[in-house]
Amino acid sequence: MSEHVSMPLALAAEQFAKLPGIGMKTAQRLAYYILNLPENEVKVFAESIVKARESVHLCSCCQNFTERDICSVCSDNERDRSVICVVESPKDVSAFERAGGYNGLYHVLHGLLSPMDGITAENLKIKELISRLGDVKEVIMATNPTVEGEATAMYLGRLIKPMGIKVTRLAYGLPAGSALEFADDVTLSKALENRNEI
Amino acid sequence: MSEHVSMPLALAAEQFAKLPGIGMKTAQRLAYYILNLPENEVKVFAESIVKARESVHLCSCCQNFTERDICSVCSDNERDRSVICVVESPKDVSAFERAGGYNGLYHVLHGLLSPMDGITAENLKIKELISRLGDVKEVIMATNPTVEGEATAMYLGRLIKPMGIKVTRLAYGLPAGSALEFADDVTLSKALENRNEI
Repeated sequence: MSEHVSMPLALAAEQFAKLPGIGMKTAQRLAYYILNLPENEVKVFAESIVKARESVHLCSCCQNFTERDICSVCSDNERDRSVICVVESPKDVSAFERAGGYNGLYHVLHGLLSPMDGITAENLKIKELISRLGDVKEVIMATNPTVEGEATAMYLGRLIKPMGIKVTRLAYGLPAGSALEFADDVTLSKALENRNEI
Repeated sequence: MSEHVSMPLALAAEQFAKLPGIGMKTAQRLAYYILNLPENEVKVFAESIVKARESVHLCSCCQNFTERDICSVCSDNERDRSVICVVESPKDVSAFERAGGYNGLYHVLHGLLSPMDGITAENLKIKELISRLGDVKEVIMATNPTVEGEATAMYLGRLIKPMGIKVTRLAYGLPAGSALEFADDVTLSKALENRNEI
């Protein structure tokens, strides 16, 4: 920011610009917005961020974010403990919970295998997953339909199947509300291949 | 957010969602990002926001944001004190300073006249502007080229001109680097009307 912008304002903007998807221009807009807020609201905002970071850690069972020792899903006795849905990140758990219809447990890997970026099996919560599989009957691979997501699902499948556990993968197909003409080739051929009787 | 998302995380996301231009989905992404940052970085971020709000106030002369009593522009003796550029918000001052080429002073109105939204002359820093006009020879109206911006410029012009001070308005015209075919009718006719000899 220019030298005629006050320093604390420039520093706040710099901090906002570090957030993902927020460029310098948006960061400045946010910093200006902060200056127009009542002082106590700014404090509540700042505290909520620090509190979230301080009190939230990984569930010792599924590795999802929680402020307790065991998260609300893992400690819910109504949940089906024989199915584990394996996802890349905590965001994916929220997505499934929002969508509803799934009543099993989760396991968050906190990443996907990506040897190019130096992310190997040791960097993911795979050890923690394997140690949970005692009474589990099915593991659903719900990683993203990308190269890394597929590779991770394949790798885990090869690791878990020999333990006598069923390993499944999310269905490929057309997204709801989409139009055939805009579907890419892979999606379309997968949707055809996996067609269901009606 | 769903009940299975930890509370502090949901609260942080809610705070982010209050920022302008940030919807619930982006807010959640930012909250998750915060959880992955080192704890001290989160504290630096939170403190920079609170500090900006606490230490920055309005310059007692031009009403721009500053952490001093008089801002760096107003206290700069190299500046031409006979010209005042009137803008809507502190962001506009930054824009002019970034662009360079202007060596006068500024005055920030902190809004535009908008009777529909209940914003009248009393809500803007107009009194403060009038009281500064002692030795001023020219007032440049640099409000946005919108209905409210025009109305505010007209209103102030009618107030200031009788004091024997020259009142000017920013030029309408084609933005640099743009294409004629995409210019709207008003811009194009104004550009034609205000054509200059070369």
